[in-house]
Amino acid sequence: MDIVYVIDILGTFAFAISGALVASKKEFDLFGVIILAFVTAVGGGMLRDILIDAHPINWIGDLNYIYTILSAVVFTFLFKSKIAPLRKTFFLFDTIGISVFTLLGLQKGLSFNLPAIVAIIMGMVSAVFGGVIRDVLSREVPLIFKKEIYASACLSGGLIYLLLRQTPINDNLNFIISAIVIIVIRTVSVVYKLELPKIKDNVFSNK
Amino acid sequence: MDIVYVIDILGTFAFAISGALVASKKEFDLFGVIILAFVTAVGGGMLRDILIDAHPINWIGDLNYIYTILSAVVFTFLFKSKIAPLRKTFFLFDTIGISVFTLLGLQKGLSFNLPAIVAIIMGMVSAVFGGVIRDVLSREVPLIFKKEIYASACLSGGLIYLLLRQTPINDNLNFIISAIVIIVIRTVSVVYKLELPKIKDNVFSNK
Amino acid sequence: MDIVYVIDILGTFAFAISGALVASKKEFDLFGVIILAFVTAVGGGMLRDILIDAHPINWIGDLNYIYTILSAVVFTFLFKSKIAPLRKTFFLFDTIGISVFTLLGLQKGLSFNLPAIVAIIMGMVSAVFGGVIRDVLSREVPLIFKKEIYASACLSGGLIYLLLRQTPINDNLNFIISAIVIIVIRTVSVVYKLELPKIKDNVFSNK
Repeated sequence: MDIVYVIDILGTFAFAISGALVASKKEFDLFGVIILAFVTAVGGGMLRDILIDAHPINWIGDLNYIYTILSAVVFTFLFKSKIAPLRKTFFLFDTIGISVFTLLGLQKGLSFNLPAIVAIIMGMVSAVFGGVIRDVLSREVPLIFKKEIYASACLSGGLIYLLLRQTPINDNLNFIISAIVIIVIRTVSVVYKLELPKIKDNVFSNK
Repeated sequence: MDIVYVIDILGTFAFAISGALVASKKEFDLFGVIILAFVTAVGGGMLRDILIDAHPINWIGDLNYIYTILSAVVFTFLFKSKIAPLRKTFFLFDTIGISVFTLLGLQKGLSFNLPAIVAIIMGMVSAVFGGVIRDVLSREVPLIFKKEIYASACLSGGLIYLLLRQTPINDNLNFIISAIVIIVIRTVSVVYKLELPKIKDNVFSNK
Repeated sequence: MDIVYVIDILGTFAFAISGALVASKKEFDLFGVIILAFVTAVGGGMLRDILIDAHPINWIGDLNYIYTILSAVVFTFLFKSKIAPLRKTFFLFDTIGISVFTLLGLQKGLSFNLPAIVAIIMGMVSAVFGGVIRDVLSREVPLIFKKEIYASACLSGGLIYLLLRQTPINDNLNFIISAIVIIVIRTVSVVYKLELPKIKDNVFSNK
């Protein structure tokens, strides 16, 4: 499905802009902006490929990722004041991007003959860890550890995909259904501000 | 020695709980708790395997690590208020775990024909860097860089193991002796609050 | 060129001292000082080798890096009060080191048949990411993302090197010219406090 590649690139573009915006809030210079856009956009897939020994890793094997990221940085510099009103559009790209990153990561895991649970983790790593690396480099506690039901969306979509693979459903249809599951869970959780449970008691507190 | 595998899993369990507890103090959500438990428990061995190109890496090659970590997270959620009184038990698991992580990491390094000094470093990385990654992700200065004689225990035990390998001592006995050295140094250093020396003067200070 | 190897080692020594000094400012203990010296000195090349699957990675394949780093830590402990007056000497080592790290990293990328843009990135990663890892581990926002035209020097030198490779110029001469370009850009930018542009508006601010 070539449409998947297009969405992959659009998602990369949206992720890179998110990284560039965080960097600009932190007053990073141009170099810092590029690096943060870069790790946000391809950091998850890069970590996945290192973990499963898939070389050349994502952005080394396909230079379009680098060009997409550099375009996103230029775009952010040029249109920075116009991005805020476009928030919803970017949220859409971002969310569709997450769903595709998750399922492509999972498929890559399966193609390397990894056990199902590891493949699901690889889907989640692909979608989520770019943001984690972004937050570590900009000295934030990773957002995803505290606020959004984001990883849960990826895990649920990955699980649906694996379950439907056991049925006679066509793989392309399965991909679409699973992607929609991820998109819906993420959108609903952001709109209704759903959160995962926390371990409430500070068990080692001195009081 | 199957007992070593059992201790490896118990150590993983103790490390995962330590990660889950740090995450709960930081008010991470369930996903954040799992990730922090995960990197604390298997992050050291994962880094070692990436550095020496040992694929599949630890938790991909043996799913028992994943199951152990998930069990530890469930355990922490269920019994969180009862863990504090069990601190000494966990310290024991943790300390025995460190000794086994160190020696297994060192043995893996040797089995990859690495030079002795690199194998010792790999033992130390296996035991120590899970905690370092935990601290980086939860935005703490890595504890181990400041307080505990912990890495020193691992280095000493690794050195003893390599020295005794040059003697006719049986390898299993050597493993036990070296593990005890690590356990004793760590326990003594914690009980007596021993610290490593620091470079005192702030040589680049403006005063 | 054996002189390149000597400069590589001198640069490693200078980088290791810079890591040890940051660690001492942070009141890390001896272990923390060694780790920070280590990642500062060889972290960039280590990341490069992991990304391009070049095993054994830098410091595992050549033990001289480890010995150099340990010597640098001992040197820092012994002569800490005398290092400040030597700042200019260390800046020189550091800057020459950066130029050699960049070009050696780039050459390694080319020898792995990577596309030119990836090879340039690898040169930059080799020179820059040791400092990034140092800053992450000591809980600083990476300095390089905010202040110095440092990566730009590496990128410019890498570009010059690749361009001159298309000409009949001898490779050794090319190496020297490109190294001088890096050294001059860095020195000029530090002396005149040049900075890269930033994305000024906080586009997502609430005001």
